[in-house]
Amino acid sequence: MAERIIGIDIGGTNIKLGIVTPDGNVVEDIMIDTEPHRGPVDAADRVNRWYRSRLEDNPGIKAAGIACAGLVEEGGYLHNSPNLRKWEGTDLARIFSERLGLSVTVNNDVNCAAWGEYRAGAGAGSLHFVCITLGTGVGGGIVLGGHLYRGARGFAGEIGHQVIMAGGPECSCGNRGCLEALVGAGAIVARYQRINGDAGGADSDSGKITVRDISAAAAAGEKSALAALEETGRFLGIGLANVAHILNPEIIAIGGGVSGAGEMILGAARISMRECLIGDILSSVRVVAAELGNKASFIGAALLAQEERINEQA
Amino acid sequence: MAERIIGIDIGGTNIKLGIVTPDGNVVEDIMIDTEPHRGPVDAADRVNRWYRSRLEDNPGIKAAGIACAGLVEEGGYLHNSPNLRKWEGTDLARIFSERLGLSVTVNNDVNCAAWGEYRAGAGAGSLHFVCITLGTGVGGGIVLGGHLYRGARGFAGEIGHQVIMAGGPECSCGNRGCLEALVGAGAIVARYQRINGDAGGADSDSGKITVRDISAAAAAGEKSALAALEETGRFLGIGLANVAHILNPEIIAIGGGVSGAGEMILGAARISMRECLIGDILSSVRVVAAELGNKASFIGAALLAQEERINEQA
Repeated sequence: MAERIIGIDIGGTNIKLGIVTPDGNVVEDIMIDTEPHRGPVDAADRVNRWYRSRLEDNPGIKAAGIACAGLVEEGGYLHNSPNLRKWEGTDLARIFSERLGLSVTVNNDVNCAAWGEYRAGAGAGSLHFVCITLGTGVGGGIVLGGHLYRGARGFAGEIGHQVIMAGGPECSCGNRGCLEALVGAGAIVARYQRINGDAGGADSDSGKITVRDISAAAAAGEKSALAALEETGRFLGIGLANVAHILNPEIIAIGGGVSGAGEMILGAARISMRECLIGDILSSVRVVAAELGNKASFIGAALLAQEERINEQA
Repeated sequence: MAERIIGIDIGGTNIKLGIVTPDGNVVEDIMIDTEPHRGPVDAADRVNRWYRSRLEDNPGIKAAGIACAGLVEEGGYLHNSPNLRKWEGTDLARIFSERLGLSVTVNNDVNCAAWGEYRAGAGAGSLHFVCITLGTGVGGGIVLGGHLYRGARGFAGEIGHQVIMAGGPECSCGNRGCLEALVGAGAIVARYQRINGDAGGADSDSGKITVRDISAAAAAGEKSALAALEETGRFLGIGLANVAHILNPEIIAIGGGVSGAGEMILGAARISMRECLIGDILSSVRVVAAELGNKASFIGAALLAQEERINEQA
């Protein structure tokens, strides 16, 4: 039996983890509470408990990969993580490695999702691939020449903070006109409320309306919901064209929570992207939906851990 | 003596060519008229005449590299070149190789400039490097992990056609709000005329005012010229931040005709870029002036040809 790997996706609310085969299939997986206030050692203990209970059916596991939101520096040191503020400055790789008795690598969750989609999902078979996650935040992971591209300090792929509308709406980062400020979940809700004339209360934090509600309304044919998703797609397409102009990838996959709105956003995004692209050749970039859902990050984390083991042995 | 290489930068008006050492020093160089209407074979004959005349002092040359504006497909086939319309569809590599009796490679001129700056100029010593050329058009070349990055079909680096202002001013490509439409030479002249209240005639084709004039006026302290360059720098900084967010390079170098305005644009660009960047870490990206001037493309073309020879021999 080929060597299996554990994938662990640590979010602010829950930890998704699973046992993954070397070609990216999920043997089994589970979701547990993160309970971040109890700290990373406690979380590692609970992950370890599950791992021990599954050891008999999955012998010979030697590595685990962790996916984690925020800036993860090489070696597994958590530099900056908005959902795990109290874990910042900890060496997650060391903590989990000691608990699990395995070789552990830590990577940014969006990079993990991109790698998972590249190896076992929407990007399979390509050489240059970009994966964009749409949700409250908008992130990106980049695979170039078959390798995850991290940039000079490991922070490449911040596609959500490219400015596509100088002087545009304010973004969570403090800047104006970022792609995230135009296509993130908050922007979609605000847009829907504006189109509906429901002015003054365009506050996605109110919990009244979610992107899921808007997607359901659009699927039922509600015109204002359809218009909101279409306008969102048009802005997304501008961001996709920018990525295509700079990187000329073969495939751009769209995942994340908002991607549930699927083709209603992607259809408009493709049209808008093509309008922006110079030359018929660039329009060959394919925009597709991501395929691995919320398992992409732990699958990719496991496959990245596997890759590092291969490199170490080489 | 280490093997020297010929570098040939073919523009719509003139051909800059020179003999380059393997570490990027120019032994000698010359500029001849392109006379594009006489066709590529005639141009190759004239380049060959110069090469033969210099053969005695430069024995043992085995390769030449050509830099050419437009879309150059792998193998040296000129797909689309706005300055050499009548040469489109010709196999420049074969034509020059037959005339010169040398191994010849053809690459996009902006990619060549980026490679020249990377190997022998502003990008030397870095691993991830972006070179942006400012002129009538705005182009870019990308070096990632020490290799020229070309993308899926060889068209990566179209940094000038990223949209930074959706719905903004019209660009030569037909789209709106591209970086080129905001920081290209035409945009700078139009901006200067707008600030000066010289409305209605903001036409860079009129030949009345050039970026060189505006730079000279700014250097002499003229307020409207300074304001025009400063505003240009602010928009450039947004484009630089987008590149930094996506690629996280160590160095971004700015070259091209407009870069003569130098620090007056770059100073404002650096401030604007920092305002856009998330996290103090990304602000570590350095923005510098390119160093090789208008020799960057033929130097880079020569060094790329050398590289291909090394790869062939390996």
